Amino acid sequence: MRKKQVVVIGSSDETGFNDEARAIGRFIADRGYVLITGGRGGIMEAASRGASERGGTVIGIVPGDGLDEANRFCSIVIPTGMGHARNAINVLAADVIVAIGGKAGTLSEIAYARIHCKPLICCLFAGGWSAAFPEAAIDDYQGAPVVTARDVEETCRHIEKLA
Amino acid sequence: MRKKQVVVIGSSDETGFNDEARAIGRFIADRGYVLITGGRGGIMEAASRGASERGGTVIGIVPGDGLDEANRFCSIVIPTGMGHARNAINVLAADVIVAIGGKAGTLSEIAYARIHCKPLICCLFAGGWSAAFPEAAIDDYQGAPVVTARDVEETCRHIEKLA
Amino acid sequence: MRKKQVVVIGSSDETGFNDEARAIGRFIADRGYVLITGGRGGIMEAASRGASERGGTVIGIVPGDGLDEANRFCSIVIPTGMGHARNAINVLAADVIVAIGGKAGTLSEIAYARIHCKPLICCLFAGGWSAAFPEAAIDDYQGAPVVTARDVEETCRHIEKLA
Amino acid sequence: MRKKQVVVIGSSDETGFNDEARAIGRFIADRGYVLITGGRGGIMEAASRGASERGGTVIGIVPGDGLDEANRFCSIVIPTGMGHARNAINVLAADVIVAIGGKAGTLSEIAYARIHCKPLICCLFAGGWSAAFPEAAIDDYQGAPVVTARDVEETCRHIEKLA
Repeated sequence: MRKKQVVVIGSSDETGFNDEARAIGRFIADRGYVLITGGRGGIMEAASRGASERGGTVIGIVPGDGLDEANRFCSIVIPTGMGHARNAINVLAADVIVAIGGKAGTLSEIAYARIHCKPLICCLFAGGWSAAFPEAAIDDYQGAPVVTARDVEETCRHIEKLA
Repeated sequence: MRKKQVVVIGSSDETGFNDEARAIGRFIADRGYVLITGGRGGIMEAASRGASERGGTVIGIVPGDGLDEANRFCSIVIPTGMGHARNAINVLAADVIVAIGGKAGTLSEIAYARIHCKPLICCLFAGGWSAAFPEAAIDDYQGAPVVTARDVEETCRHIEKLA
Repeated sequence: MRKKQVVVIGSSDETGFNDEARAIGRFIADRGYVLITGGRGGIMEAASRGASERGGTVIGIVPGDGLDEANRFCSIVIPTGMGHARNAINVLAADVIVAIGGKAGTLSEIAYARIHCKPLICCLFAGGWSAAFPEAAIDDYQGAPVVTARDVEETCRHIEKLA
Repeated sequence: MRKKQVVVIGSSDETGFNDEARAIGRFIADRGYVLITGGRGGIMEAASRGASERGGTVIGIVPGDGLDEANRFCSIVIPTGMGHARNAINVLAADVIVAIGGKAGTLSEIAYARIHCKPLICCLFAGGWSAAFPEAAIDDYQGAPVVTARDVEETCRHIEKLA
């Protein structure tokens, strides 16, 4: 009954990997999965755009109070009014998480993915914490896998396997 | 782009007004609106069932951590891990709110509807706080309307007007 | 080891019952209890002022992000960054709750007091929801008492008994 | 008016660095600062014990609903009912943060420290993320300093300087 929910995390001001994020968003919609992001710009908007182009359901869980605070590609908006504490919710909403680059906000979501044992795909090609975390990680990856992807294609294969 | 989001609130252990909640859920889906509830049983489940029967998008924003904690009619589940504090999020996600009966949890959501100036439809026929609030209310209903409905039909007319 | 924690709730823009709130704050500190409020102005500030005058510990749990967002009588500030959703936390922090007047924000806290079975003292003399709730209440007050107070003295007697 | 608030973060099941955490807790209380932790066991309990021994104010901001869920050295308990999402609040409550070891929960708090530009002291001697983060960190430490400490004494000097 419930559709698989794929959460894409990454920086709101990233511009270098939008094509990749958009392609991943397209793949998520094509597979019939729901795309969930933090609803902001950058990577979140690019992935949302891709999923929206293929007619997918796109949910933005936003930090502010307003239904109008999400990027324009979201078909459904969940305002939390909780600021960055909403990052914990983004992660809980995931069957699988895709990290594309990212700074401190993304790192908090990676940490929550480990806390809640969610399968996590780290895009090595996008720099940021999605590249730095797998190397730095000090826990032993029990509970749920952390996998790495070198390109969009490998990311999509992981999504399909882990969702 | 974004679809209208109707939030139905009411008790998780209510049994007397499930037919009405289900009919309202059907109406919401028939109009192409997204139904959002707290994802639990009782009124939430009955409304979700109605919307699901008509192929609508049904979101459950649940208090617990798990994707499996919502009733079976939800097509998308947002676990918050925040317990009853998630009631604030339910309300923020609304274009319009429909209260059907309800106890203290519903009262907290009615209060948040007033705080965030959300249009609120109180079902007088269902008892509980949806009947008691309009009479007790001490604020002057500025910001957004509080309207009352005597039956399912009047409730649906209000939804259509306020969404 | 832990000191008793008394939470005072009421409107941030109330001006008519500040003397009463301040007297109640003094009593709380004199008894060695910790005073907790939402950290804003109005009733919260007046109660904090009273407790501060007697050297009490005064905690403000504020909706915003900043340590400087509380009234100046708070000795400790807990910023939540969660907006009004922090009302749920205020209530959970209570051994006993004192409602002095109040609008929709206070009503949400009264509702959470019922959800979490916290002893609740409603000041009838202060108007607002602290006067309107006991009359409107439709639940049967199981789990924890809801008591009413006609003046500051009766409020303080209830605090001492219920804390 | 407000006292300085020092937040100590670290694992709830850590046993190897309790003496160090306790000594740091003692220092915090001796300086007249308020100690805030997540209220659980391990590092949090050890630091709370130290501050409590010196008569300090010790606050536990706990994930659960109950006033009785904190370790026994807390003089004040703030239950959030939000699970691990309360980590965002712990960080917001800090004038300065001390990380002693730690796993994924601590990493989420380190991430929030960067998001909210809070001064962060990373104890290199305690292993875990407090040792791994400074090396892995990919942001440029703008906004607020990240400093490292090789022993308890250096940690205390940093606390005094940054609080």
